[in-house]
Amino acid sequence: MTSSFFPPQRTLMGPGPSDVSPRVLGALARPTIGHLDPLFVQLMDEIKGLLQFAFQTTNELTLPISAPGSAGMEACFVNLVSPGDTVIVCQNGVFGGRMKENVERSGATAILVEDAWGEPVDLEKVRQAFKSHPEASILAFVHAETSTGVRSDAEALCALAAENGALSIVDTVTSLGGIELNVDGWGADAVYSGTQKCLSCVPGISPVTFSPRAVERINQRERPVQSWFLDMQLVMGYWGANAKRAYHHTAPVNDLYALHESLVMLEEEGLEAAWARHAKNHRALVAGLEAMGLTMAVAAEHRLPQLNSVKLPEGVDDAAVRSALLNEFDLEIGAGLGALAGKTWRIGLMGYASNERNVIRCLSALEAVLARQGAAINTGAALSAAEAAFS
Amino acid sequence: MTSSFFPPQRTLMGPGPSDVSPRVLGALARPTIGHLDPLFVQLMDEIKGLLQFAFQTTNELTLPISAPGSAGMEACFVNLVSPGDTVIVCQNGVFGGRMKENVERSGATAILVEDAWGEPVDLEKVRQAFKSHPEASILAFVHAETSTGVRSDAEALCALAAENGALSIVDTVTSLGGIELNVDGWGADAVYSGTQKCLSCVPGISPVTFSPRAVERINQRERPVQSWFLDMQLVMGYWGANAKRAYHHTAPVNDLYALHESLVMLEEEGLEAAWARHAKNHRALVAGLEAMGLTMAVAAEHRLPQLNSVKLPEGVDDAAVRSALLNEFDLEIGAGLGALAGKTWRIGLMGYASNERNVIRCLSALEAVLARQGAAINTGAALSAAEAAFS
Repeated sequence: MTSSFFPPQRTLMGPGPSDVSPRVLGALARPTIGHLDPLFVQLMDEIKGLLQFAFQTTNELTLPISAPGSAGMEACFVNLVSPGDTVIVCQNGVFGGRMKENVERSGATAILVEDAWGEPVDLEKVRQAFKSHPEASILAFVHAETSTGVRSDAEALCALAAENGALSIVDTVTSLGGIELNVDGWGADAVYSGTQKCLSCVPGISPVTFSPRAVERINQRERPVQSWFLDMQLVMGYWGANAKRAYHHTAPVNDLYALHESLVMLEEEGLEAAWARHAKNHRALVAGLEAMGLTMAVAAEHRLPQLNSVKLPEGVDDAAVRSALLNEFDLEIGAGLGALAGKTWRIGLMGYASNERNVIRCLSALEAVLARQGAAINTGAALSAAEAAFS
Repeated sequence: MTSSFFPPQRTLMGPGPSDVSPRVLGALARPTIGHLDPLFVQLMDEIKGLLQFAFQTTNELTLPISAPGSAGMEACFVNLVSPGDTVIVCQNGVFGGRMKENVERSGATAILVEDAWGEPVDLEKVRQAFKSHPEASILAFVHAETSTGVRSDAEALCALAAENGALSIVDTVTSLGGIELNVDGWGADAVYSGTQKCLSCVPGISPVTFSPRAVERINQRERPVQSWFLDMQLVMGYWGANAKRAYHHTAPVNDLYALHESLVMLEEEGLEAAWARHAKNHRALVAGLEAMGLTMAVAAEHRLPQLNSVKLPEGVDDAAVRSALLNEFDLEIGAGLGALAGKTWRIGLMGYASNERNVIRCLSALEAVLARQGAAINTGAALSAAEAAFS
């Protein structure tokens, strides 16, 4: 016989999932109601309004996809890309590579604009790509690269797409709720995110929003979207304005309770206040890490406050440090990915987990574990440096 | 400002979601841990073992897809179907039509075997379809049609597929945990289900299992699966035996706590006992409905115990009855779908919701509402008929 599972209370400071607020967990566990219940339909309307607020958009087609961020990504590509299209894909980390896969599996050609892992997307290279490929109908890029902790200039990239008559597909999985994101102000066309980063909700849902231009392209498609589950024309029948709430699939009712509560919390705090909180805790963490003698992996002007890439000090055993943090301190930080595996750690300060207590706990635990491993760090200086940055 | 959402405590006796056990809701709300946490990886192994138990299979490739049943359906089709293939699709309700969509969006040809809504799949028609289309490489059908409440002979249909050298794709969304399902014994090749029916878990996850023959077909594919999110070769890198737990997407951690708990409960009860419980409560409900003078919509030998289609009595306002049940009794029953809209109700007795109390409550509430509407029913006889059937 299998026993029930009782997880420990971790502090999640990796690349996501991040710590979920007790308010959100409480909402998650409320009694399930039917997905066509009139009260649930009201909840859907509220979630749509709250997502429009979080994305800063009036886009009618704004809703949570009933699957993780990778499915939100796929929803954007399979609805907007048709076989034979050319799509410019910016790759400066893991997720650009995944976008390329999505383009190719949609029967289109991906033109890669590559930048080093740890660098933002180079606008000049994108300009050149549009010059070489004037037929490109979409520009796809990642706003906040979770694999490296780098922010790219989404506003400028969306403008470049528009200047070249292309739509923009923007990955905001890690940016939504953590740094400025202005879908309408920037003219982004298809934007997907995740619930498990700066919204501090449980993983499994992907908020998306499509501009009227994107919806027009979807409506003009000549061939059906290759995915039935992610076909926005069908999904709109359930989620759209004046929709008949036609049954498409059974909505993940309890996950949507949780998403609703996390968005209510964001509304209560305010977007600007949430961004400022992420920025403040980031500055304190960096001050502490640098006081310890560690080096950040990303140049200051491109850093994401919610995901801090820091270089491993010399001679340190990556896995042993992360295991000690997890097993002795119940503290999860992230390993480096891909080109940065074994070279960096990724320390998340996302959403609910972005608070002073976590900054202090992480610095003290990391210092203790590194000191025990004999790493060449400065001890005893991190907490006061962080505290100075808070005040 | 938006307020927090507090749903009422409904009794869910529609076509799903069904009532979720407090044990499962309790598991759902436990603290989130990372999707690569060693403890979570242990949980994944347990879930896999429990799903193998529930499906009665030793299939190595058995796992929960991180999205609802429709995505589980799509996972089966996009991984097994290639452009140019011929797939025989049995249609006797809503979900056969959805299978056809999946076949066509995979670039293949669907040969429809049609039966009336409310009837099971006719084996003879399937035999004829294989004779006319010896090139067919897959037979797809629905074991338990949620839109009509009909059970088809999955064992015989899987055998027909095998005799004709085809793989079988079987929709068990509503059957898993409610009626006999023997994946290995019947030789089913690709089987998908849902969490929100007889497992009484929250909606949003789709358990799937693939036979070694199906895995071989996946491994021999010449072109990549059109869906990146649902590509089983990639998913296997995270879920497979000896897998490196390679990051594919962020698992819906809390939903999987809930699925685990619901499967632990099924294991504690035992498969045969769960099926017997569904059968017993079904007999009592039918006895009560018939004592009231109502007529079941499906012939006795094809009825699903977990989903009871009953005809509306003459002159009754469908929507008004369901609204009264919902608003005055907090009781949800399902409307008819498609060809049966306005003609039947669908009364679910699924999983945790399949119990004596719900049978009694549903009969008494329905009788009260119908009597108030002046429907031509027998009053005062339903409860004793149900109680006699229980004993």
